[in-house]
Amino acid sequence: MSEAKIRFEMVKRRHKKRFEEAVKKQEADEAIIPLCEFINNTKHFFTSSSCSGRILLLALKGKRKRDASFHRKWHRKVSFEEVWRGIEDAKNCELWFKTEPFIIHIGASSLKKAEKILDIKNKAGVKRGGIIVAKPGKFILELIGTEEIALPVKFGDKIIVSKSFMKEVVKNANEKIEANFERLKKFESIIRAELK
Amino acid sequence: MSEAKIRFEMVKRRHKKRFEEAVKKQEADEAIIPLCEFINNTKHFFTSSSCSGRILLLALKGKRKRDASFHRKWHRKVSFEEVWRGIEDAKNCELWFKTEPFIIHIGASSLKKAEKILDIKNKAGVKRGGIIVAKPGKFILELIGTEEIALPVKFGDKIIVSKSFMKEVVKNANEKIEANFERLKKFESIIRAELK
Repeated sequence: MSEAKIRFEMVKRRHKKRFEEAVKKQEADEAIIPLCEFINNTKHFFTSSSCSGRILLLALKGKRKRDASFHRKWHRKVSFEEVWRGIEDAKNCELWFKTEPFIIHIGASSLKKAEKILDIKNKAGVKRGGIIVAKPGKFILELIGTEEIALPVKFGDKIIVSKSFMKEVVKNANEKIEANFERLKKFESIIRAELK
Repeated sequence: MSEAKIRFEMVKRRHKKRFEEAVKKQEADEAIIPLCEFINNTKHFFTSSSCSGRILLLALKGKRKRDASFHRKWHRKVSFEEVWRGIEDAKNCELWFKTEPFIIHIGASSLKKAEKILDIKNKAGVKRGGIIVAKPGKFILELIGTEEIALPVKFGDKIIVSKSFMKEVVKNANEKIEANFERLKKFESIIRAELK
């Protein structure tokens, strides 16, 4: 076996193990498990940390607001009421409402195999991402959807958005997260058809 | 000359010409011209369409709102007044307020040279992007900053945000666009130190 191949097998084994542990502990994002399992069972590919997309309330703390934590996180459509409750419950932070598209990390055994993923990305209309690590035996791709919303909703204890505005934003966020899941489904179906 | 090398020279010539024409017609984003010129004068790299980052009002039209056009666009900090005037002036569209980080496209002559750009990306703390085209003689990288805001502000003729809320958003957008320019500067200084 070539050095690159040994390295790939080693890296793949490590990532696969980490994924299986996350599934066991129910820490993995459910909507993306079948796709990850399919990729991990191919010969030349594996997945690393991935997310199907989410709606969230992000709390920024500290002087430079670099300390970010999930105040709420949903991998699904949300109701205005649960979002508003989440906003009311937040304390002593700068709170942001966000939708984030899926983000998938895929390892490939060679540049040629990595190119294959770039082809599939283009076919599925996934706009963002590319090869982020390129070493013999270790090619990692990051693929990201595009549907995004991001706005501040609370500073300290002061809610800065109105209920009627947030109702519109939540409606829009639900549309965007649906479109995101549709794109992910399309990507998954092309992956299943084209990867061996 | 190898086939890959001929291809690289051809692609580089085409992109360089396009860039020079854009500068002549004053269509290029000024803040990014020196960086592009530096890269275009190296042996193994060139730039393709790039943007230093911007604050904008985006108008979505048509049934599925896929028809997007710039209602306003600023490659700089903005005042609340000019943003609000822009919002008031928009007609018959779904209007979004956004900040978008820089996006830079760099061509490299080989995988090894492309890896060099990935290294610089990591050193500069540029979070998003990677190699998006990987063909002999044609490696294209896309690098993207991270500071983003995106929210709907007007549906049809109805403004859905309050003035006081938009004042906070504009303040935040100005902070984000500043941080974006700072990161771009850091990236440029590392590029100048490390590329030949």
